[in-house]
Amino acid sequence: MSLGSVFVSEVLGTMLLLLLGCGVVANVALPRNNGTDGGFLLVNFGWGIAVFAGVFAAYKSGAHLNPAVTIGLLTSNLMDGSVTYAKGVDVTVTSTLVYLAAEMVGAFLGAVLCWAAYKKQFDERGEAGSLGVFSTGPQIKSTAWNLVTEIIGTFVLVFVILAFAKTPSGLGPLAVALLVVGIGASLGGPTGYAINPARDLGPRIAHAVLPIPHKDDSNWGYAWVPVVGPLVGGVIAAVVANLYIS
Amino acid sequence: MSLGSVFVSEVLGTMLLLLLGCGVVANVALPRNNGTDGGFLLVNFGWGIAVFAGVFAAYKSGAHLNPAVTIGLLTSNLMDGSVTYAKGVDVTVTSTLVYLAAEMVGAFLGAVLCWAAYKKQFDERGEAGSLGVFSTGPQIKSTAWNLVTEIIGTFVLVFVILAFAKTPSGLGPLAVALLVVGIGASLGGPTGYAINPARDLGPRIAHAVLPIPHKDDSNWGYAWVPVVGPLVGGVIAAVVANLYIS
Amino acid sequence: MSLGSVFVSEVLGTMLLLLLGCGVVANVALPRNNGTDGGFLLVNFGWGIAVFAGVFAAYKSGAHLNPAVTIGLLTSNLMDGSVTYAKGVDVTVTSTLVYLAAEMVGAFLGAVLCWAAYKKQFDERGEAGSLGVFSTGPQIKSTAWNLVTEIIGTFVLVFVILAFAKTPSGLGPLAVALLVVGIGASLGGPTGYAINPARDLGPRIAHAVLPIPHKDDSNWGYAWVPVVGPLVGGVIAAVVANLYIS
Amino acid sequence: MSLGSVFVSEVLGTMLLLLLGCGVVANVALPRNNGTDGGFLLVNFGWGIAVFAGVFAAYKSGAHLNPAVTIGLLTSNLMDGSVTYAKGVDVTVTSTLVYLAAEMVGAFLGAVLCWAAYKKQFDERGEAGSLGVFSTGPQIKSTAWNLVTEIIGTFVLVFVILAFAKTPSGLGPLAVALLVVGIGASLGGPTGYAINPARDLGPRIAHAVLPIPHKDDSNWGYAWVPVVGPLVGGVIAAVVANLYIS
Repeated sequence: MSLGSVFVSEVLGTMLLLLLGCGVVANVALPRNNGTDGGFLLVNFGWGIAVFAGVFAAYKSGAHLNPAVTIGLLTSNLMDGSVTYAKGVDVTVTSTLVYLAAEMVGAFLGAVLCWAAYKKQFDERGEAGSLGVFSTGPQIKSTAWNLVTEIIGTFVLVFVILAFAKTPSGLGPLAVALLVVGIGASLGGPTGYAINPARDLGPRIAHAVLPIPHKDDSNWGYAWVPVVGPLVGGVIAAVVANLYIS
Repeated sequence: MSLGSVFVSEVLGTMLLLLLGCGVVANVALPRNNGTDGGFLLVNFGWGIAVFAGVFAAYKSGAHLNPAVTIGLLTSNLMDGSVTYAKGVDVTVTSTLVYLAAEMVGAFLGAVLCWAAYKKQFDERGEAGSLGVFSTGPQIKSTAWNLVTEIIGTFVLVFVILAFAKTPSGLGPLAVALLVVGIGASLGGPTGYAINPARDLGPRIAHAVLPIPHKDDSNWGYAWVPVVGPLVGGVIAAVVANLYIS
Repeated sequence: MSLGSVFVSEVLGTMLLLLLGCGVVANVALPRNNGTDGGFLLVNFGWGIAVFAGVFAAYKSGAHLNPAVTIGLLTSNLMDGSVTYAKGVDVTVTSTLVYLAAEMVGAFLGAVLCWAAYKKQFDERGEAGSLGVFSTGPQIKSTAWNLVTEIIGTFVLVFVILAFAKTPSGLGPLAVALLVVGIGASLGGPTGYAINPARDLGPRIAHAVLPIPHKDDSNWGYAWVPVVGPLVGGVIAAVVANLYIS
Repeated sequence: MSLGSVFVSEVLGTMLLLLLGCGVVANVALPRNNGTDGGFLLVNFGWGIAVFAGVFAAYKSGAHLNPAVTIGLLTSNLMDGSVTYAKGVDVTVTSTLVYLAAEMVGAFLGAVLCWAAYKKQFDERGEAGSLGVFSTGPQIKSTAWNLVTEIIGTFVLVFVILAFAKTPSGLGPLAVALLVVGIGASLGGPTGYAINPARDLGPRIAHAVLPIPHKDDSNWGYAWVPVVGPLVGGVIAAVVANLYIS
């Protein structure tokens, strides 16, 4: 598979992930929707199925959709040398950068599409916050503990995905979808479970540039936490998985 | 498979889809039900499993159940010439019309059955609206942006269904069911996710002709939006899928 | 498989079905539970997974768990002569009676186990109704329309189960579980979706004989509706399935 | 598979089970979370997917994750002599102790990780109880009936898991996950469904030793109920399964 095809595939998959993921938050958080105040389980299923759809769309490139997954696989390859990013896609500096770039571009585009689908709700929402539809933020600000929460959440995500690969099951993308529902339900309370640097940073850029009326601040001071936390969690997961479930 | 069998199959499948789909809205929206005010996730699961049941019933004819799917497959066939509507059913003008007619008839019949199942609740509901059980409507009226929302939602539906066909998975109809749960959760806020012209138009006709006490207006001024939007979304999905996930 | 084994298998499966099914209603409807007032989707998932567990336990006898399924299969056999109740279990008068008796005994036992699990909640519930935990009842009493609702719900159940048998899928008991979640969500509003004579009558007998403090009436006047409605729905489903999805 | 590998595998699996299981309770029960007051179905899905993740992580050691499962398999082996704990792991006194020890250690570690993920919420929660995040307790205290509820719940868990092994299905760990969702929904009302001695005792020890501000009592008087009840339920399930679904 060419790196150009990898790029298109990961852009499409990450775009769907963010369109549906930010979409369910928009549905619940913005006024005058059918799902307004629809509850956290609705949000969890929305994000889970967002991953489900994105994985199908990006199946041929391995459906990373997440720099923490890409960096986790890179770490696995450093440890045992036999990992590939997808069938026919070797781990190299170039291929790594293609995945990371595609994930960021796709996340940005998905957030823009979400904004288009909810355009009137954004326009008529009064003064209420809009950033929460795009990016995560802590319920209680604490850089250290917010990092811990994101590290643990992403550790679970990447560790269990690596365990899927070693377990017979006919579930395919459904397994990842359910895992994401569960991580949201169980670990999404304190920080909103970014567990994916592109999921948080791409939409934050979209929020900064889109013409949203009386827009709130894009909270750049927090923006590094949901980037660094997930990357650290992904690396730890890859190390533990390589040591203990080989 | 004969076109007569295709017709019966698609009528039965679309009838089940609308019976269960309108049914869950009736349960939530009408008074004196066990599910009254049961929340949007209940509605999303109801519609998702409605598709699930309909796909099983119409499996042999490919279970389109939706003109946007039929037109999407027609578009795919125009682009690469090798698509069929189902095993043994070629894409022709006649077969296309059979699918579209069956989808409309099935949708009408399903809405009538839903009305029968909820007859007493319709009769005793007071002055509250009844159209919402049958057909979709915008939370904030805006022809252009309502079209955008329906186009995006149907694009996701048809694009991911086309991606399913290229991905190994033992999920079968469950994959489509989950996708519809997710599209409802994530993109159903502004317009109620018709994402299917027959799903909206068939029940709207049923609403117009059924003897419902102190019935509200059938809102024909909006009726073209959930027909045109989904057809446009389906065509775009087919074009993008053919170009990028071949 | 001997008819003695069929009896034990169907008793165990129907017992689990009613234990978990009545259990979720007890959890939601009785005071001082973790699930008190937990909502209708919780009830729908409880019943769906109740079927899931029951089907696994009774897999070897075909997991009817429901006289409407047994009578539906009997009808199918009258029409085409090649149906069996399970691998190695022919359709005869005796085998039919064994299934029906086992379903009733299992349903009664499951309801008794549910009562034991929720003993303290039944005792401390004040004057509130207890029958609703065991058996169904209409939100708006109307013999004719309550029958219609039960006939339609059971038609969907048996018709789609018969369609499962003709469709390739790796879902197994999950398909029936999801179908029951959906029928509850979509058609459970007016009458509480008995869709199974044993599910309603067995627990109603349990309610009548168990030592529940300040017990309400067992409502025998309505008891025939959730028996006759489901049997009629099952027969119609078998006829339609044999004619149209052969 | 060496017993050392069994130990690591079960520790990792049970750790994930308790991290995600206690996590969803923390999310719902502690203030200032995205899931605060998110409802019982959210809790049920959280625990179900916690099992799902744990089973994948511990697949190679058979993923007991629960002393009631280990003791149930031990009972099965006493009855027919052909049971193993996992592929290549015979039932011996030593292997039994390794499973039980790993389950306890993993449960303790998972509870500690949950506390870390929710550190700020524990710190800022005011005087509200913290034990409920870690361990179960009865809604209505009654030693005998609380035991009955736990015995019945664990009977269902272990009995249906043993039935899974005799039934063709491509669901794998999803079947156990759904079963746990259902047991929670249907039988989790009165006692909070420990149905697993390690799930309750490991986190209770963690609660006793962790530096949680203005911590409530660890309720050691009740601690034996969710240990003994599940063990009894597991043994009964193994006996019934061996007699009736062989």
